[in-house]
Amino acid sequence: MGGSRSKSSGPPGPLRSPCPIAGALDLLGDRWTLLVIRDLLFYDKHRFAEFLASPEGISTNILAERLERLERCGLIERRQYLERPPREEYHLTARGHDLLPVLRELIHWGKRHVPGVAQRPPAGVKLAVRPR
Amino acid sequence: MGGSRSKSSGPPGPLRSPCPIAGALDLLGDRWTLLVIRDLLFYDKHRFAEFLASPEGISTNILAERLERLERCGLIERRQYLERPPREEYHLTARGHDLLPVLRELIHWGKRHVPGVAQRPPAGVKLAVRPR
Repeated sequence: MGGSRSKSSGPPGPLRSPCPIAGALDLLGDRWTLLVIRDLLFYDKHRFAEFLASPEGISTNILAERLERLERCGLIERRQYLERPPREEYHLTARGHDLLPVLRELIHWGKRHVPGVAQRPPAGVKLAVRPR
Repeated sequence: MGGSRSKSSGPPGPLRSPCPIAGALDLLGDRWTLLVIRDLLFYDKHRFAEFLASPEGISTNILAERLERLERCGLIERRQYLERPPREEYHLTARGHDLLPVLRELIHWGKRHVPGVAQRPPAGVKLAVRPR
């Protein structure tokens, strides 16, 4: 697939190396992408305004760009839930859902090693990890 | 610890939220940091020139900045191995070594879902994951 990759379509740029970690970071290696995946996976968020309301305060620009990239790379899919006016929701694909173990290990590491983070999910929040 | 954080010292900026994923990404959420950890963990690399020689082609600027940040955040430590001229090596701390499960899951995900990445480590490379 390498040759067909470009900045404007498909995954972001050619692979930097054959390393699967580098390949994963080409898609996921920033401060925001995995937070959108988190919101889909654990908080049952599916709409633009819901992602925007998350406590980290992602900007509309970055959120729109990340959703577009995640869809282009097949980690999420858009579903129209209202025809007029047109309104869409975002849902994880199998490829996106498979990031659950990565997030679990990041949670584990963060709780052990990042001073000040919460040791438990927010009270009253029902963590939604749906069986597939 | 939140109050003492700044761009110039300690971990990068205040926590964006109490979420451990966000906290981990504050440190690790970019395209390069986890590749340096990979080199330390799997390839037994410890010197600046060794990291620089990795196939992704990290720049000296970015590498120097990431090493400095990783040391500041306690994921790696510097050890002088030559006095004159002064020469240093970088080694993982326990906090850095604990990223092994995160990298394992990224490898697993990358191999399954990123087209074109290698399914096996490069031939002849002895992957060095030392028991601690």
